Parts: sequence; structure tokens; C-alpha cells
Amino acid sequence: MPDKGRILSIQSHVTFGYVGGKAAVFPLQCLGFDVDIVNSVQFSNHSGYGRFGGTKTSAVELASIFDTLELNELLNPSRLLTGYVPNAEALTAVAELASKLKKQKPDIIYMLDPVMGDSGRLYVAPDVVPVYRRLLSLATVISPNWFEVETLTNIPLKDMPSLRQALTVLHTDYRVPNVTISSIPLQPWLMEAIPSHIRPTSDGPYLLCITSSSTFKSSTDQLSSVHAQCVPLLSGYFSGVGDLFSAMIIGHFDPSDSSLPSGRTPLSHAVSCALTKTHAVLTATHEFSEKLPLEERLPTDDEEDKVEPMRKIRRMKGRELRLIQSMDIFTKKENGDLRHMEPWTSFWEQS
Amino acid sequence: MPDKGRILSIQSHVTFGYVGGKAAVFPLQCLGFDVDIVNSVQFSNHSGYGRFGGTKTSAVELASIFDTLELNELLNPSRLLTGYVPNAEALTAVAELASKLKKQKPDIIYMLDPVMGDSGRLYVAPDVVPVYRRLLSLATVISPNWFEVETLTNIPLKDMPSLRQALTVLHTDYRVPNVTISSIPLQPWLMEAIPSHIRPTSDGPYLLCITSSSTFKSSTDQLSSVHAQCVPLLSGYFSGVGDLFSAMIIGHFDPSDSSLPSGRTPLSHAVSCALTKTHAVLTATHEFSEKLPLEERLPTDDEEDKVEPMRKIRRMKGRELRLIQSMDIFTKKENGDLRHMEPWTSFWEQS
Repeated sequence: MPDKGRILSIQSHVTFGYVGGKAAVFPLQCLGFDVDIVNSVQFSNHSGYGRFGGTKTSAVELASIFDTLELNELLNPSRLLTGYVPNAEALTAVAELASKLKKQKPDIIYMLDPVMGDSGRLYVAPDVVPVYRRLLSLATVISPNWFEVETLTNIPLKDMPSLRQALTVLHTDYRVPNVTISSIPLQPWLMEAIPSHIRPTSDGPYLLCITSSSTFKSSTDQLSSVHAQCVPLLSGYFSGVGDLFSAMIIGHFDPSDSSLPSGRTPLSHAVSCALTKTHAVLTATHEFSEKLPLEERLPTDDEEDKVEPMRKIRRMKGRELRLIQSMDIFTKKENGDLRHMEPWTSFWEQS
Repeated sequence: MPDKGRILSIQSHVTFGYVGGKAAVFPLQCLGFDVDIVNSVQFSNHSGYGRFGGTKTSAVELASIFDTLELNELLNPSRLLTGYVPNAEALTAVAELASKLKKQKPDIIYMLDPVMGDSGRLYVAPDVVPVYRRLLSLATVISPNWFEVETLTNIPLKDMPSLRQALTVLHTDYRVPNVTISSIPLQPWLMEAIPSHIRPTSDGPYLLCITSSSTFKSSTDQLSSVHAQCVPLLSGYFSGVGDLFSAMIIGHFDPSDSSLPSGRTPLSHAVSCALTKTHAVLTATHEFSEKLPLEERLPTDDEEDKVEPMRKIRRMKGRELRLIQSMDIFTKKENGDLRHMEPWTSFWEQS
């Protein structure tokens, strides 16, 4: 197996299940990477279960690990991946590390997943947001969701001009060369704007995934090269999907790859691979969870869930990613079956 | 990929390199197990480097994780693997958990690696020893090294009668059904005692590995069925080998396997697989480290190492297991190339 180099991964750890590092590390190891793992928390299970035990790693503890790695000359990863970090102090320690690494090795590939919230709700302390904004200029690729783009840019995404403006802020003000936004609800204005070759061919709910690379432009008068793809939405909420997705992006992102066909960017290719693999794992997980006994897949019902916490816990358990059983998906060489991110050449044209 | 079930693994975590959980988890995942991971420490690198940062997980933190897992009905592994736990309080929390699991599921397979020391030197606090002694009766398999057998039994191993006595104490007094002792120096009295079909066929240093199963006897008047094999000693000390070895034993131990040829026990088969894979990884690591630049493989020299700590650190780094690059070794189906543990039928005969 070829030596792919080292990835330093800083994110959450759970004993049971697959979110954070547990969702990211094994797939990256299957791709051949040595993964240096720093756990920002050690919890029994993810917080979506409602009940969880364990502790957060303090900023002092993180700094102790980072400093010793540096002192021992063990701090020279070719890639850096950061995900959930629970508070501003700890995130500041991570930011100092990222800044140091970037200074030492300017071509380090830094994949920043600014984990802050979802669907209009922040699930980190608000003082984390400005630290993420400061981190942006160090990143090679960022993978915010819809809500995190709004939070970072302070721009509510309600039409094409605001979407263009948000990407302009990220590329220009924050100097992020590569942005990917996944799981965008296909609202009517967005459905209308996407070119016909990207539009879904069948009925049923879809999500949109967008990539935007300012370093690889299809024409000189555009700010970036944009690609997109519609992904069928699977019913039910599965945790860890974003963590797996980001891991697969950094695992497949290769700016020195000269074999890419024209019209593809290193980011659009990496996201094509990441989408394909993540969707395959999600499909396997969905099929597995559908076959579970009824009591392990009772639908979300906030009132009943509150009265009987095990209702939610069993549902969460039944929806843990089938990551280990999907090993072949990660080890398989990418072939013609990729879900390709397609060029959206008219993205920057004002209508 | 088939569902192999869940292993709860409790041992150390390091960011850089492969010892403890970092040496055990990936290979077990490659075999198809879901591994529930509890980190007893989070360190930058293993302690053999001389300098390390990070923190130990307290007994309270461990209990918080275990209790929440139980409350959430997420505590039902089919196998339990415990390795390095840094002090008696934390180990007592682990012992309480092991006791609870054993009560709930008497046929749970518990692989206990009583990590205490090596080569005559204890590297845990002395009050850990009695906690390990109490744990022994819960274990399905234990994998002490030579020194740990002496420490647990209080019997200095100096001849065949003392070796028989130590195994008698472990099987009878402590009620451990399966014992494996690896990396035994082939002292003259041992070389003389082992049957000719086990004796090494070529010159050069060898280590002996022994298994002893009291539940599978080759004759009714024997306390246990003993198997052994000589393994060529590779020069240099490699960390994490014992952790990988124990993981591979629990990964291959199957007491319900009825396809074993006569003369083999489930333990001897599991250890044959574990030895084969561990030796293959070690060989790959040894070959890699031999090709490193001289400054990364300077020989041990206590005086010079003390003056210049980086001397030792670079050596340790160069000897980290080539675990990720050995993925194929773990995923490959066991075939005829196994290094078989051979029956030592005369073991219990007094000469």
C-alpha cells in the first residue's frame, strides 16, 4: 500500500458510534494515510442522543500535546483536518497551531470544517464564531453547511445575488481558495437558477452540493470556478455524515494532480469522490436502519421523545453510520462510477 | 463485509505513532469489528520517547463514560479488550465495568493484557498489581509477558518446574482458562525442554511464544493443552507490538469454531494468526527503519541519549509500526502461510 503521508486530525471522539474522528479516521486510514489524532472531547456517544458522558479536552491539555509534538519534531503533517472543537479557548489553541503549521509549511493542505450549527441553530458557544472567522485565511478548503455560511458571512442566503455575495466574501475578504457547501435545500429560487444539466431528473427531495475554487477559474472575468450536483435526500437525520464528507474531501484533494480532465478542478474532483463514497455509506446505513425492529426506528416526536428518552436514543443508535461494514467503499479505487460535480459556468452571470 | 460484532477497547491513546489503541483499533476494524474506544490517556506520543505531553483520563471520567453507555443501553459488546491503564483508581473503574459486563453476559470474550512492565522493570504504580490479580478471574484470555507472569504469580521463572507452577497458579488459583506468554527469551533450560519439532532450525536469536488452554485438554490427566512456537528476534525495540498482538488474538479467538483441526485449540489458532500478522508488520517496520538515514536510527546509548534527547526521539520515531502500510496483512484471509503454534504434549510431564 502506498505511503500517502500524514494527516493531523483534530476533532471530537466518541466511544460508541461514528461522528467526528470516529467517522473520519478509519476511512482516511483505508486510503493509506497515517492519521495523527487529537481528540477535542472524549464522550460516550454523540450529543444528539440527548444523554452523554465524558469530558472536553481543555485548551491547556491541547497545547501540551501540540507543544510536545513540536519539541519532539513530530509535528510535520502534510495535511491538517479540523472539525468540532467545543469552545473558543480550545479553538484558539487549534488556531495557534494551524497558524504555526502554515508558517512552517505554506503549502500544507488545511481542510477546515467550521462546525458551529445546523438548520438555523448554533450548537457551539457564540464566541467561537469570530475565532473561526480568523481561521478562514489559513484554510485551503472549507466545508461549511448552509447555516454556517450565513453565520460566517452574516449574509442570509435567500437568492442568487446573496449566494454570490457570500462566496465573494469567503473568497475575497477571507481569502479562502476553496469552498464547498453541501446539503443545500433546493428552494425554488435555487432550483430555477441551476442549469438544466445539474437539475434532478426525477421527482423526490434533493439537496444541492456546490464547490467554488478561486484558484482554478474557467474564465478570467469570473471570481471562481463553480461546480454543483444534486444528491437525493435520504429520509431521517444521520450524524457524522459531514465529518465523513470532509475527511473524504481532504483524502482526495490533490492540487498537483495534472491528470484531471478539463472542466474539473482539484476541489470538484475531490468532492465528487467524497460525495460518491459518503452517499454509498449513507445508503448502506439507511437500508440497514430500515430493517431494524420498529422500536429502534420510531420517528422523531419531540413530545414523546421528552417523556421517554430511550425512544430517541434507540433511534440514534439505529442510525449510526455503517462505516466498518463499508470498508470496501473506501479502499476501492475511484472508477467511472463517480457522481460528478458538474461545471456551473453561468454561476457568476447576473441575470 | 461481514458484521463481526462489537469490541469494547480500553487502552492508551497517542496522537503520533502506534501503541495502545492506535496499534489495536485499525487492525480490528480491518477484520470487520465495530470497536468502541475508550482512551485511558491522551498523550502526544508514547512514553518511550522520553518526553510526552497530554493527560490521563481520571477514574471519574472513565466512570462517567461507562455509566452513560449503560444508561443509554449502548454497553453490550461481545468482546472486551483492556490494555494499559495508568493507575489503580482508573483500573478499578475498568474492573467494575468488566465485572458488570461478565455478570450480564457470562460468555463475553474478555482479553486482558495486564500491562505492568517489561524486562524486570515495573512501569505502572505498584498498587496496580493487586487490581490486576482481582481482574484475572474475569478474563477469557490473558497475554502477560514473562515479567508480568512473574509479577502476577510471585514465581521467579527459572526452570520448567517454576514455569509449570506459574501456569498452574494462573489456571487454578486465578481461574484463567487461556494464557498466552509471548517473547520469552530462549534460555538454555527452556531450549533444552522444548520438543525438537518446536526448536529453531537455524542459528540466530529466537523468542518463544507459549499458549496454555485449560478448557481444551489433549488428555484428561493434564491441566491444560500447551502449544508453542519459536519466533526469530528482530534487532531493536519496537513499541506497540504487544498491543497489536493482543488485538489480533481477540480478533481471531473463536471458541465456537468447530472447523479447527485436531490438536489445535481456539487459543493456539488465534495466536497462530496473531503471531503471523504481528511478525509480518514487524518485518515491514524493521525493513523500513533499516533504510532510514543514520541520524534516525542511532543505536541505544544511555549516556549519549541523556545528553541529546533528540537522539532517542528520532530512533523511536523511526521504529513506529508501519501499521497503515500493512493494511493488506490484516484484511487478507488467513491461509496456509500461518506460523502455527505446535502442540507441546510433553509439557506437563515431570522429567
